[in-house]
Amino acid sequence: MTDILNRLALIVAARADAPPSESHTAALLAKGRAKVAEKVGEEAIETVIAAVQDDRQAIIGESADLLFHLSVLWHDAGLTPDNIDAELARREGLSGLAEKAARKS
Amino acid sequence: MTDILNRLALIVAARADAPPSESHTAALLAKGRAKVAEKVGEEAIETVIAAVQDDRQAIIGESADLLFHLSVLWHDAGLTPDNIDAELARREGLSGLAEKAARKS
Amino acid sequence: MTDILNRLALIVAARADAPPSESHTAALLAKGRAKVAEKVGEEAIETVIAAVQDDRQAIIGESADLLFHLSVLWHDAGLTPDNIDAELARREGLSGLAEKAARKS
Amino acid sequence: MTDILNRLALIVAARADAPPSESHTAALLAKGRAKVAEKVGEEAIETVIAAVQDDRQAIIGESADLLFHLSVLWHDAGLTPDNIDAELARREGLSGLAEKAARKS
Repeated sequence: MTDILNRLALIVAARADAPPSESHTAALLAKGRAKVAEKVGEEAIETVIAAVQDDRQAIIGESADLLFHLSVLWHDAGLTPDNIDAELARREGLSGLAEKAARKS
Repeated sequence: MTDILNRLALIVAARADAPPSESHTAALLAKGRAKVAEKVGEEAIETVIAAVQDDRQAIIGESADLLFHLSVLWHDAGLTPDNIDAELARREGLSGLAEKAARKS
Repeated sequence: MTDILNRLALIVAARADAPPSESHTAALLAKGRAKVAEKVGEEAIETVIAAVQDDRQAIIGESADLLFHLSVLWHDAGLTPDNIDAELARREGLSGLAEKAARKS
Repeated sequence: MTDILNRLALIVAARADAPPSESHTAALLAKGRAKVAEKVGEEAIETVIAAVQDDRQAIIGESADLLFHLSVLWHDAGLTPDNIDAELARREGLSGLAEKAARKS
């Protein structure tokens, strides 16, 4: 199975080109950045609630919704999963350097 | 570069085993589910704000924070990226079926 | 004009007794605590977005929505504005004591 | 006891004039609108979690924090509780008209 976030990026890109009347994703993007951001916030709230309720199936479902809408936000901002990946890799490098520094001191 | 979410899952698992005094991740997990969920919510709020401000670098940084803490939540709930992937694949299948049904009607 | 939060408490209490089919508030309460909490979270996200956009009219409108749904949560939890007021008064007292202590040192 | 929100508005206004080094509120306001909005979002997340956990004392405490930071946002936006009150009164009026219309039909 290929990488989740890259697959989501492709799905979002395909739906973004559909007419807003045929695609929820295209309709959401047509409403503009604030509405896209609001959806990310709402799915995060639902993930938080599922987490506190310790509802395993709901955590899975809401996490999937959250990743999907985060992918819509990245699409809208002209970002790809590679941009986020590079930032995480940079931090891992810093974290590795911090660890080495800590071992020396 | 390997899959982001699987790499994050490995990093979180490694840090979770460290003493809480040496790892923010271990310290967060030690505080329990509600605090882990709270961090997911906070990083989502920061992602929303970066999105509305249209601050490209902040969207990248906050998205990285959000994915990291979502990975901490999955670890705490005994979930792996594969669980989320399976749910997304299931929906893509449903979406594919819906499309076929729509084409027939 | 009487106190906002007490007026909201009365409005929520009146609507809570209506049939769910006739009142959004009664319908929301019938869905249970998690859905009531979710609405508080959603209205807060919308308030955050209005604030970052510096949209005065939207801040007013979303703040009104947030206070309303916070009042629904308090009703569901058997709380009144007096419970929150007492907590705030207790903190003001502590804050007054802290200020005095700070002036002495 | 006087109105909660008007009392909070007076407290926030007094603290806003203090040096940022002596007042958390002044320090928060000095960081700008996005940070004020972020605090509103964070307190809302904590209120949501307390609500789902059905922790009465935590709902009271987090609601107090939320109202306080909402008051800081209103101060920053040049709004008073009267602005929110007028909006709520306007809606109650509309709601009353909607009820009358419903009774006639």
